[in-house]
Amino acid sequence: MATEYSQSANQKAVRWHPPSYDIRVESVPIPKIQNPDDAIVKVTLAALCGSDLHIYRGHGGVDKVHTCGHEFIGEVVALGSSYGRDVKGRPALYSHLNIGDKVVSPFTVNCGECHVCRLGYTGRCPEGFLFGSPALDGGQAQYVRVPKAGGTLFNLSDSSTWSSALNEEEKRKALTDIADSSLLMLADILPTGVFAALQALNHPKVAPVITGKAWPICFSPDQVSGNEVSLIDEDKIITVAIVGLGPVGVCAAVSLLDALATRKAPFRIIAIDPLETRREKMKAVYNAISDSGKGNGEFIVQSIEESKEAVKKWTGGVGATAVLEVVGNTSALTLAYDLVRAFGVIVSVGVHGEPQMPFTGRQLYNKNVSLDFGRCPARAMFPLAFDLLVKRQDVFGGVGQPESLVDRVVDFSQATESYRAFDKGEIGKVIFDPWK
Amino acid sequence: MATEYSQSANQKAVRWHPPSYDIRVESVPIPKIQNPDDAIVKVTLAALCGSDLHIYRGHGGVDKVHTCGHEFIGEVVALGSSYGRDVKGRPALYSHLNIGDKVVSPFTVNCGECHVCRLGYTGRCPEGFLFGSPALDGGQAQYVRVPKAGGTLFNLSDSSTWSSALNEEEKRKALTDIADSSLLMLADILPTGVFAALQALNHPKVAPVITGKAWPICFSPDQVSGNEVSLIDEDKIITVAIVGLGPVGVCAAVSLLDALATRKAPFRIIAIDPLETRREKMKAVYNAISDSGKGNGEFIVQSIEESKEAVKKWTGGVGATAVLEVVGNTSALTLAYDLVRAFGVIVSVGVHGEPQMPFTGRQLYNKNVSLDFGRCPARAMFPLAFDLLVKRQDVFGGVGQPESLVDRVVDFSQATESYRAFDKGEIGKVIFDPWK
Repeated sequence: MATEYSQSANQKAVRWHPPSYDIRVESVPIPKIQNPDDAIVKVTLAALCGSDLHIYRGHGGVDKVHTCGHEFIGEVVALGSSYGRDVKGRPALYSHLNIGDKVVSPFTVNCGECHVCRLGYTGRCPEGFLFGSPALDGGQAQYVRVPKAGGTLFNLSDSSTWSSALNEEEKRKALTDIADSSLLMLADILPTGVFAALQALNHPKVAPVITGKAWPICFSPDQVSGNEVSLIDEDKIITVAIVGLGPVGVCAAVSLLDALATRKAPFRIIAIDPLETRREKMKAVYNAISDSGKGNGEFIVQSIEESKEAVKKWTGGVGATAVLEVVGNTSALTLAYDLVRAFGVIVSVGVHGEPQMPFTGRQLYNKNVSLDFGRCPARAMFPLAFDLLVKRQDVFGGVGQPESLVDRVVDFSQATESYRAFDKGEIGKVIFDPWK
Repeated sequence: MATEYSQSANQKAVRWHPPSYDIRVESVPIPKIQNPDDAIVKVTLAALCGSDLHIYRGHGGVDKVHTCGHEFIGEVVALGSSYGRDVKGRPALYSHLNIGDKVVSPFTVNCGECHVCRLGYTGRCPEGFLFGSPALDGGQAQYVRVPKAGGTLFNLSDSSTWSSALNEEEKRKALTDIADSSLLMLADILPTGVFAALQALNHPKVAPVITGKAWPICFSPDQVSGNEVSLIDEDKIITVAIVGLGPVGVCAAVSLLDALATRKAPFRIIAIDPLETRREKMKAVYNAISDSGKGNGEFIVQSIEESKEAVKKWTGGVGATAVLEVVGNTSALTLAYDLVRAFGVIVSVGVHGEPQMPFTGRQLYNKNVSLDFGRCPARAMFPLAFDLLVKRQDVFGGVGQPESLVDRVVDFSQATESYRAFDKGEIGKVIFDPWK
């Protein structure tokens, strides 16, 4: 049965005020349907994300009061006029979304039907907005308006819309057994981690290691080989460094391990962070993964200082095949450059600011570096991320355990203090329950 | 019959003198075998390349007199002790190279058998040197010493070593009908052009356009789709901009056209250069390509000013799927950024200098840009480049014609003047005949 919803009442919302460090829980109007494609979602849980801190700190060039948050899960309580009939050629949810359905949203809106979305680049839909920005109120509230909801939302109540590789038994368990605090990871951190891992594993410069065939014959069995001698086993070991072990970095590590275990590919992974608390979290997560999810390789967790020596030793001075940069600043990029091999790949999913890139053209030429930047197309990554979430409940299932990515669930009265403590690194990932 | 070769005599060589703009033709000793893997090649033809100008102008940080040139073709006149027996596990030419064989060399030495070479990354072999640098005398001489020649050289006299996709009739013609001035393009410009095109076409972010399947299902038919609607024909048209129409840029265009024609992929290509002479050359080359090599798409040649409007118009403001940057400076990179779409790819094969990259992290994040930098692994690209050379004798066959990449063949007495005029852009690609 559908939850009661009144457009005339007020609600509680976590609001950011300029210029910086000013978070207030305020009473504001409950959002209304504004366009036929809108949905109103009653928020069950909303999370605080590292990238919320850009605006919090006043670094976002933002000067408008708005409701924070781009990670939320909830229940549909109102739908625009586009829904409820069989709509040919539009995204599935315009036909399949109902009042009362449980949904999770990616951190940006995407229409799901324009040229950019058709290609799967949903994170850059021209009709997209970031939740929790001056353009679109966020999910740290009791209700949130979701524009283009039929293209944006993922319906957790209707497995026929999932496009998942899960079998029927796994789907049934997914519908009933997974906690909302776990499903909420789909909003941002899990698809972004999967995106980082996927880009590295699919990059042409990584292909020789993965396929066991030299460049350029790695691309197609029809292509011809050159003068080279055959690859040996050592050449087929992929070495990956992950720089930054916040929640996204940990998700990237779990995704990478899963993908390499599935492919039975030998590997060495080094996960790097300057903070001991984050390194300990990464170790606990790794230890909680069942053997089948760990695959056939070495996995170590180190500080920045130790990491260069470790990669050098592992690879005989050659460097890492790929580096996942999950921080978003120039010192992380510089470390990534130092660690990566010639003909290596740096995948950067961190949100970067105004500083110039810390490389000269000659540095990039001399090492034949490839760089993949940018925001995760979260909605497009949902099927892969969802399947991984279901598979890895050993690490994505809990709250407050050593291996949990979620540190605590709190009510809005603790919102201001939570922002402060999260910004200072005193606490891990926080989820708000707007109804407690 | 083998050419006469005397280690005790002197030879003519084009030599660079510090600090800059000082080219002299001098008499120097003929090189000797120094190591068992060496070969001595009697140079038939040697070309002047745009990247020779870095040292010429004094920008290379070089202060040692040396013989210039990294593009040469010739005949083997002496071999070290590693050759002439069946050597298991070493590159083919240690068994198959003979005195008198016609050979072409890539612009760098590569051993062909270390970890880096086994992966096909021959341009970054740790035992590699660039010909025509203080570390290794170049090919603008009557004789040149080729270290690690069994891994480095391509044997134009023995089609059994080619690993080519050509049929027997094509191979026979290749052995007899192709001019040395055409084969010389294998040394650098043709494999580098193929490398640029190949990197763009194989990049994961280009995959949805090429495969017609959305990200991330483009990677594997087993992967699951998301909420997206199907791609339409317009989504499957690849739009590529080529920035810089020197010889490498033209080769990149021909390679790209050939690859897209082979795949029957619809395309739009815009080839861009500020110089009208280069644009005219590009147009003449395009017109000389037979219809089967032109494929199914539009090809236009424009100035920088016109190009932004053209790409905008073609793509409804979205931008180019990929940009090939074949210049090697920051203004070319900036233009590439302006032209590329969100989730687009910039492939940079230009030789870059010390200036900082002209992008902020935020710019790259906001457009989800991918960048592939670096030197072509020329030896690894030889089979693909060679097949294209044979196929495209309509444009790669001549000298001094409107569609020819080679402007003229001159003797060493014109070396000093040729460097000057080439540096000023007064003449196109020059080949030296050391024996005229």
